[in-house]
Amino acid sequence: MNVDVTQKLHWDELILNALREDIPWEDVSANSVVNAHARGRVDLICKQDGVIAGLSVFVRTFALLDETAEAELSVQDGDEVKRGQKLGRITAGMRALLSGERTALNFLGRMSGIATYTRSAAKLLEGTHTKLLDTRKTTPGLRSLEKYAVRMGGGSNHRFNLSDGVLLKDNHISAVGSVTAAIESARAYAPFVRKIEVEVETLGQLEEALAAGADIVMLDNMDDETLKQAVKLAKGRAETEISGNVTKENIAKYVSYGVDYISSGALTHSAPVLDLSLKNLKPLTV
Amino acid sequence: MNVDVTQKLHWDELILNALREDIPWEDVSANSVVNAHARGRVDLICKQDGVIAGLSVFVRTFALLDETAEAELSVQDGDEVKRGQKLGRITAGMRALLSGERTALNFLGRMSGIATYTRSAAKLLEGTHTKLLDTRKTTPGLRSLEKYAVRMGGGSNHRFNLSDGVLLKDNHISAVGSVTAAIESARAYAPFVRKIEVEVETLGQLEEALAAGADIVMLDNMDDETLKQAVKLAKGRAETEISGNVTKENIAKYVSYGVDYISSGALTHSAPVLDLSLKNLKPLTV
Amino acid sequence: MNVDVTQKLHWDELILNALREDIPWEDVSANSVVNAHARGRVDLICKQDGVIAGLSVFVRTFALLDETAEAELSVQDGDEVKRGQKLGRITAGMRALLSGERTALNFLGRMSGIATYTRSAAKLLEGTHTKLLDTRKTTPGLRSLEKYAVRMGGGSNHRFNLSDGVLLKDNHISAVGSVTAAIESARAYAPFVRKIEVEVETLGQLEEALAAGADIVMLDNMDDETLKQAVKLAKGRAETEISGNVTKENIAKYVSYGVDYISSGALTHSAPVLDLSLKNLKPLTV
Amino acid sequence: MNVDVTQKLHWDELILNALREDIPWEDVSANSVVNAHARGRVDLICKQDGVIAGLSVFVRTFALLDETAEAELSVQDGDEVKRGQKLGRITAGMRALLSGERTALNFLGRMSGIATYTRSAAKLLEGTHTKLLDTRKTTPGLRSLEKYAVRMGGGSNHRFNLSDGVLLKDNHISAVGSVTAAIESARAYAPFVRKIEVEVETLGQLEEALAAGADIVMLDNMDDETLKQAVKLAKGRAETEISGNVTKENIAKYVSYGVDYISSGALTHSAPVLDLSLKNLKPLTV
Amino acid sequence: MNVDVTQKLHWDELILNALREDIPWEDVSANSVVNAHARGRVDLICKQDGVIAGLSVFVRTFALLDETAEAELSVQDGDEVKRGQKLGRITAGMRALLSGERTALNFLGRMSGIATYTRSAAKLLEGTHTKLLDTRKTTPGLRSLEKYAVRMGGGSNHRFNLSDGVLLKDNHISAVGSVTAAIESARAYAPFVRKIEVEVETLGQLEEALAAGADIVMLDNMDDETLKQAVKLAKGRAETEISGNVTKENIAKYVSYGVDYISSGALTHSAPVLDLSLKNLKPLTV
Amino acid sequence: MNVDVTQKLHWDELILNALREDIPWEDVSANSVVNAHARGRVDLICKQDGVIAGLSVFVRTFALLDETAEAELSVQDGDEVKRGQKLGRITAGMRALLSGERTALNFLGRMSGIATYTRSAAKLLEGTHTKLLDTRKTTPGLRSLEKYAVRMGGGSNHRFNLSDGVLLKDNHISAVGSVTAAIESARAYAPFVRKIEVEVETLGQLEEALAAGADIVMLDNMDDETLKQAVKLAKGRAETEISGNVTKENIAKYVSYGVDYISSGALTHSAPVLDLSLKNLKPLTV
Repeated sequence: MNVDVTQKLHWDELILNALREDIPWEDVSANSVVNAHARGRVDLICKQDGVIAGLSVFVRTFALLDETAEAELSVQDGDEVKRGQKLGRITAGMRALLSGERTALNFLGRMSGIATYTRSAAKLLEGTHTKLLDTRKTTPGLRSLEKYAVRMGGGSNHRFNLSDGVLLKDNHISAVGSVTAAIESARAYAPFVRKIEVEVETLGQLEEALAAGADIVMLDNMDDETLKQAVKLAKGRAETEISGNVTKENIAKYVSYGVDYISSGALTHSAPVLDLSLKNLKPLTV
Repeated sequence: MNVDVTQKLHWDELILNALREDIPWEDVSANSVVNAHARGRVDLICKQDGVIAGLSVFVRTFALLDETAEAELSVQDGDEVKRGQKLGRITAGMRALLSGERTALNFLGRMSGIATYTRSAAKLLEGTHTKLLDTRKTTPGLRSLEKYAVRMGGGSNHRFNLSDGVLLKDNHISAVGSVTAAIESARAYAPFVRKIEVEVETLGQLEEALAAGADIVMLDNMDDETLKQAVKLAKGRAETEISGNVTKENIAKYVSYGVDYISSGALTHSAPVLDLSLKNLKPLTV
Repeated sequence: MNVDVTQKLHWDELILNALREDIPWEDVSANSVVNAHARGRVDLICKQDGVIAGLSVFVRTFALLDETAEAELSVQDGDEVKRGQKLGRITAGMRALLSGERTALNFLGRMSGIATYTRSAAKLLEGTHTKLLDTRKTTPGLRSLEKYAVRMGGGSNHRFNLSDGVLLKDNHISAVGSVTAAIESARAYAPFVRKIEVEVETLGQLEEALAAGADIVMLDNMDDETLKQAVKLAKGRAETEISGNVTKENIAKYVSYGVDYISSGALTHSAPVLDLSLKNLKPLTV
Repeated sequence: MNVDVTQKLHWDELILNALREDIPWEDVSANSVVNAHARGRVDLICKQDGVIAGLSVFVRTFALLDETAEAELSVQDGDEVKRGQKLGRITAGMRALLSGERTALNFLGRMSGIATYTRSAAKLLEGTHTKLLDTRKTTPGLRSLEKYAVRMGGGSNHRFNLSDGVLLKDNHISAVGSVTAAIESARAYAPFVRKIEVEVETLGQLEEALAAGADIVMLDNMDDETLKQAVKLAKGRAETEISGNVTKENIAKYVSYGVDYISSGALTHSAPVLDLSLKNLKPLTV
Repeated sequence: MNVDVTQKLHWDELILNALREDIPWEDVSANSVVNAHARGRVDLICKQDGVIAGLSVFVRTFALLDETAEAELSVQDGDEVKRGQKLGRITAGMRALLSGERTALNFLGRMSGIATYTRSAAKLLEGTHTKLLDTRKTTPGLRSLEKYAVRMGGGSNHRFNLSDGVLLKDNHISAVGSVTAAIESARAYAPFVRKIEVEVETLGQLEEALAAGADIVMLDNMDDETLKQAVKLAKGRAETEISGNVTKENIAKYVSYGVDYISSGALTHSAPVLDLSLKNLKPLTV
Repeated sequence: MNVDVTQKLHWDELILNALREDIPWEDVSANSVVNAHARGRVDLICKQDGVIAGLSVFVRTFALLDETAEAELSVQDGDEVKRGQKLGRITAGMRALLSGERTALNFLGRMSGIATYTRSAAKLLEGTHTKLLDTRKTTPGLRSLEKYAVRMGGGSNHRFNLSDGVLLKDNHISAVGSVTAAIESARAYAPFVRKIEVEVETLGQLEEALAAGADIVMLDNMDDETLKQAVKLAKGRAETEISGNVTKENIAKYVSYGVDYISSGALTHSAPVLDLSLKNLKPLTV
């Protein structure tokens, strides 16, 4: 397991905050029954089929409570896991194991839930050129964890925030009067390394966007026929994105039209948690 | 809307973190098309039936970006809302409205999603003496928001963290050898204002827990018949809790046994977001 | 010495803040006379009889300045120490020893002062069933350290904060009109894992409180005769607490009445520091 | 009351930390009996003779919970107050009054305790040229509050930290070999705006210190006769300081010798709290 | 003056940190001679020709010390200012004016220095299609202020950080073996909204980059003839950037070759400060 | 390399902030071409003659990203370095090397730039008794790094902040009416360990300052003849400081007058960066 730069600079702090939320003073239950020197080992068990994501966060939770914590894992982020499968085990102080359990699982379950949901949607796109994207509809404060989980599930990331990508929507367009004016304003204002994406609702707006040099067009609120034409029109001139709920039916349709990207907020805002559990806690003689 | 002590001491900080996550430098799109002095007004629209929760967080998001922001709301936390219903409107600087939209909705949608899901489960318990509880399976860092949302949905809160409640599970019990020993250790160690809850799997353990003076017993892994007897045995001596997925079927059964509390992690870890949206942004002349 | 979860999640941060307060830039005195590579060893000496508490904080202060710091201690938290006794020694970089000395002693002296004061009061209760409690009258920001010190001195902890315990005082009662109404409001509002304590000033209020199911009653402002009756009345129905200055005289009296708990703010807000010192600093050849 | 630069840059943060420590989630007691819109007024009463200090911190505690909080005070920092005296009153939301009470009093009581203790010692020096000094033996994290309280009590401040003053003690001296070498090292190393103070134990060391140009000499561990000579020797060449417990007896003696400064750690580390209380909480109609 | 979203979310914190650095406890000089209630007014004077940038930061510095501070300014960010010109005046508490002066000027002088230096370089490009870019060679912690100042000076911003832009340099290329492989790896890995820039040193590498679909090519280490050919080759296929010190001579040459962007680290890392001063402080009667 | 107390308590945090500024999520370029387990080694090369300062900060940048990072350095802070000289090499994970490069160099280049500029000015004072001082005109947030760099360049530090030194300027003097009143106010108010410096513009003011016991006088706005007399007048009674731009011409003149200190803001606010670079990155087999 590689605990890399992102983990050190960002995720450790998220873990510490979560631990402080759960242990504002001490773990009364654990401390009343386990002495400070006891060590133990516990298994990580999967209770549901899914895709695992967030193992470094899981392991670091224990390591931040006890620097001698050690993990042996038989899977890595992105792997498919099966109900009942033992994914690995953690050895650490008993108090660290008991006190860190819920926080570690809250992270791992949530990230794996997103990876699992994303995988199921991404599979519908396998073998096509259309890619699945996430959105900014993420849990406040946890965006980097969740966008990472989307990638582990097989999705791709859209922009990370309002500073690193330009997306001009109806409100932006109406504020300056036209699609053309909006794109020109953005090109004049934004750093040149930003691609410019614009949301269009008609073929007229689309033509305007393409003429003004949009890099990406989000096709919004179009009927099927218009959509089909829109994708054709944009081909080779701009990338195309559709945003919406992903179902077997609409996926197949959108793919057949040749759209480049389908984005879905549900990947991050409505994925149920993956059920995971720590089992078989055993004391070790020290 | 009352922005009270919890909001000031805790939730403002969560909002600021979320805004900084989404706007690490500036909102390139908004700033390229809207000038700094423009003001506007936008409607908050519900796109799904549900229960609203988190309005103070929603409003503060804009107020933290623009202290002149003003909200007129026609609903309050805990109200049922209908698809298509206009819930209120926000007046503020255009840049604050555009830049704060996603963050404000990410909070409100998530909290309302939890309230909605909780309400649907709580309704199954209406008219009975059994109460619905949340758990510690919450989003890392957002526990206070989520436990508040559970209350707005009609659920009750279990302990908030490992310091403010004692719950002795199988691991704790095996660490000291018996239910009795675990309860005695906890009573000796924990502040006397803590109730002591213990998880039991057999009637024998239950008897032991009751004899040792447990305040609450969590009945785990029991078949229906045992469960029924357990609740009867505990009546008047300790409160009883069952943890598990809440369905129409099992709820009715548990209620018929007379259990006091049913807790459910799904309320907070797997509730889908409530779909809400800001619409009809209009410039105001200043 | 076990540096456990509380130390890692909370106390390290308090130590770092204290060090930054004392060393905003550098220790000019130490750095002008000692070179960066010199190592040394120093003894921890007790200059007053008392009870030691806070040794992990003391040791971590040096370890946070110099990860090679090592402690050999001959006592542990809660031990009685004598004037002139050598409690152990620290080996570390000379600069870390000199720069950390005051901060380490400020923590250790304060915590030991509380433990010492608490022990002297707790001894008056030895052999009785009455227990000594602390209060929320602690130093702002250092509550967890001070409540820990109370335990090391032989006292017990009351609630930690306004969220994890319910205590309804005269102001709360008058706000809703009666003891009964206050208890019912609290039971309806507070998480069910909270015990409910209520302050009563007359036997009438006490009866009301017991009837309404208070878990703990604080007997306030009662003359001796009333107090005696009150304790008798509450026996078996609720735990009883008296708050006040602890003296040999009143302790004996309260114990004879059979009260369960005596709480005292003075344990944390007025305990004089225990006088400790670092002596015999010796350079080590490296 | 002037809420000035120090309050804004430093003390507000200390207050917020203390409030978050006491209210990690909500004030369950207050919130269960008082609604969010109720306003009230409460009196600040002194229950002991003393010197008041920390009124701006006291008032800001409520203002940070409720920006409409208003204070009317009849005393100011440094004033002597009498048992039973009403010092002022606070008007604010009922919840802010109830939830902020303990934190506000914890600050005010501690700071006033220090001012009271300092005043009693400073009075022994009135009419003499000798001044009373504090030390760095302060509560970790609260040094600026405590040094301010010392001033309100009539004492003077010694250095604030290890960066802004030089004090060469026995350990520093032995590290470089002699008083002269220590002073020369410090003069070469420290910013030139720093005065150099050195601790001496014999008249020989004192002569050395004066010859080397020490600005201040701390006379340590000397018998009365030596001390008397030492002060005479230093007169006009360096300021003199004695550190020790301040009693009527030794104060008179030291003053008669003509020493310039007497410093005392007890001012900040062992002053008992001043007993203050909020009384007569009354609801206001809004 | 519009204090907008970036100011609130990010720059206020930078100002507060700077004020805490300069005033760890109090402004001893100001507080010893000015009372807490005195108000005053002071002029902002320019002592050098240049371009002003950072006025909102300058004004907020005083407002954060004293919320009644008011500014009247006769210039705005990006304006050219002349030696001796009065740029405006600030009215506030005397202590806030004295205590905030250095911090406010340190920000304003630094930002204006960058704007001034950038303007002088940008003028060399006026009337051409070539644009001036900044780099990531900024002051640690102040990047957003400095990149804003570059824009006020007439420059454009390159990427803000390692997450929001892709730039493949020699080290990256050698790590995967070829320009093509590097571009393909980046396209597979990076969010699709990122443009891909690659550094090339030969026409061969350039051809490879263009063929692989690089969005931007940085032409490094090429002689003039090669450079000329490279720009021609890339025209219409990718944007071209040259990085280097900007002088009248090389600017003219690069423009004549038709390069799109010239980037310069010196804009932010070596611009001397613009000399500004607060003068004519006058007390106001209150 | 000794990573000492200042580094641990203060500089590590500055480095982490800078890394988080540059890597808000991940280094997309590095992560797309280098795998997580690759290790490498890179040389630190100087591209300009100068004085090196900040090596511990440089090395810690990599160590904070990868605790296995190791540095071999052939120079230490304060050493003169030559164009083309190899100063050492760093071995670490490839990703840490690539992701930390810019931040590490931004610190080292800036600090070395200040040391270089200071050395060039300090050399003009070699062999005289006049010393070179810095000012408070430092980069907001980086003062301690910059004042350290000044020392490495051969300069001395003036006061660090408004709390640890008294400097009474024209505004302070006019606020209380006279030089004498200002000095007396400051002596009464400031901790006795502070030296008092006062700015004077005439010989009359100087006489007043000396009579009132100023420790240091800053001679401002005086013509050469007056200056010469002023220094003579102050000799033996107070230290003398002149503030201004340091040039060969004025330095020689000031030295000949016998002034004690010359301070210069340019040392920290206008020193160009020293050009340094990481070269020859080589993969290591692991």
